[in-house]
Amino acid sequence: MSQAPILLYTYPTPNGIPVAIHLEELKAVYPAFGGYEPNILALSKNVQKEDWYIKLNPNGRIPTIVDRSRNNFNVFETSAIMLYLSQHYDPDFKFWFDPVKDADNYSEMLQWIFFAHGGIGPMQGQVEHFCSFASVDIPYAKNRYLNETRRLYGVLEIRLKDRDYLAGSGRGKYSLADLKPFTWVRTHAHATVSENLDEFPNVKAWLQRLEGRAATAAGLEAVKVPS
Amino acid sequence: MSQAPILLYTYPTPNGIPVAIHLEELKAVYPAFGGYEPNILALSKNVQKEDWYIKLNPNGRIPTIVDRSRNNFNVFETSAIMLYLSQHYDPDFKFWFDPVKDADNYSEMLQWIFFAHGGIGPMQGQVEHFCSFASVDIPYAKNRYLNETRRLYGVLEIRLKDRDYLAGSGRGKYSLADLKPFTWVRTHAHATVSENLDEFPNVKAWLQRLEGRAATAAGLEAVKVPS
Repeated sequence: MSQAPILLYTYPTPNGIPVAIHLEELKAVYPAFGGYEPNILALSKNVQKEDWYIKLNPNGRIPTIVDRSRNNFNVFETSAIMLYLSQHYDPDFKFWFDPVKDADNYSEMLQWIFFAHGGIGPMQGQVEHFCSFASVDIPYAKNRYLNETRRLYGVLEIRLKDRDYLAGSGRGKYSLADLKPFTWVRTHAHATVSENLDEFPNVKAWLQRLEGRAATAAGLEAVKVPS
Repeated sequence: MSQAPILLYTYPTPNGIPVAIHLEELKAVYPAFGGYEPNILALSKNVQKEDWYIKLNPNGRIPTIVDRSRNNFNVFETSAIMLYLSQHYDPDFKFWFDPVKDADNYSEMLQWIFFAHGGIGPMQGQVEHFCSFASVDIPYAKNRYLNETRRLYGVLEIRLKDRDYLAGSGRGKYSLADLKPFTWVRTHAHATVSENLDEFPNVKAWLQRLEGRAATAAGLEAVKVPS
């Protein structure tokens, strides 16, 4: 499995961080894994809309990977990247589930990935827009997205009752199902969704569990914007 | 592969329709497939928030399936349901790609599924809210979501240049990658995203291609609200 480092185009946002953490997890578990080279794109200069990048990521967003060991195959969309990396570089199912031999847990993982990918991500993104970036103050929109994001945190809260992780038997196993929503929930205070998660105690404990992982710290460090 | 019909809880919305179409496609190709029983939930009565349903779908949304042939395993999230059905009931890869033997096309399919699941779906959903349902007129929000949805249609337009379908080699192969965005793009006029798609000719031709499928008509018919 020795191979050239994977090129990662990214930025330290909730969509851009999980792939770096996932790559750090793989590096820590598989000594032969070739690692990765993070490239922090200058989003303020719209580099992500330049022709060379659009060829890699037709949506003009981060993150994107280029796998130099597999004929420069490129992948866009955070969740699709993590599933690609799992399939090719996590043969022992350390951070996912065997689609064939452990099909039900694999499906549960996908269900929670899609829940985060289509729910928490886009909705909390709108909170951040209307609460931090919009040029106008629109209370209706702020309330709409804050309420929906809090409702979605509430769904996680119920799921995490008597569980450590979102997917897997018993108390669950750390997997992509956790990694995908983690970087959104991590910014709960900045996004004004919740000051300290006290109203979501299971989510708060889960967040601390994920924040305590060595790969989390390493991934966050790797995608810092160069000063 | 003979089995009890799959229970489908759904409603005729862009998220609720694709699973019915997919099930119709499977029925048409695999004679031994047990089919499905559609259950149209009374969303106006908030049935989707009742305890019995939340046990099946913790997010309280449609669609959900219950697979009575596999120990009543239940799946939520449109995209996760279609991947589950593929894995268990499409062994010849008629509507998806072999994850192992055709890994790159499989990944491309996932990339476009996630693109639609996290992009077109949520963004066009916001268009419909602010243009059709909101109690207040907020031009800023209408413009924001119309512009973003049109940008996303533009990404499909570029992808569909010299292609019939979003994923697959050459001109592509009809797959879940198409089915997931199809039901959103189908409502382009009602959602006021585009009057007739004339500014997106490749998307328009693709839409007509999908609308012409027998399973599309059958799936739409199956999820009609009982009168």
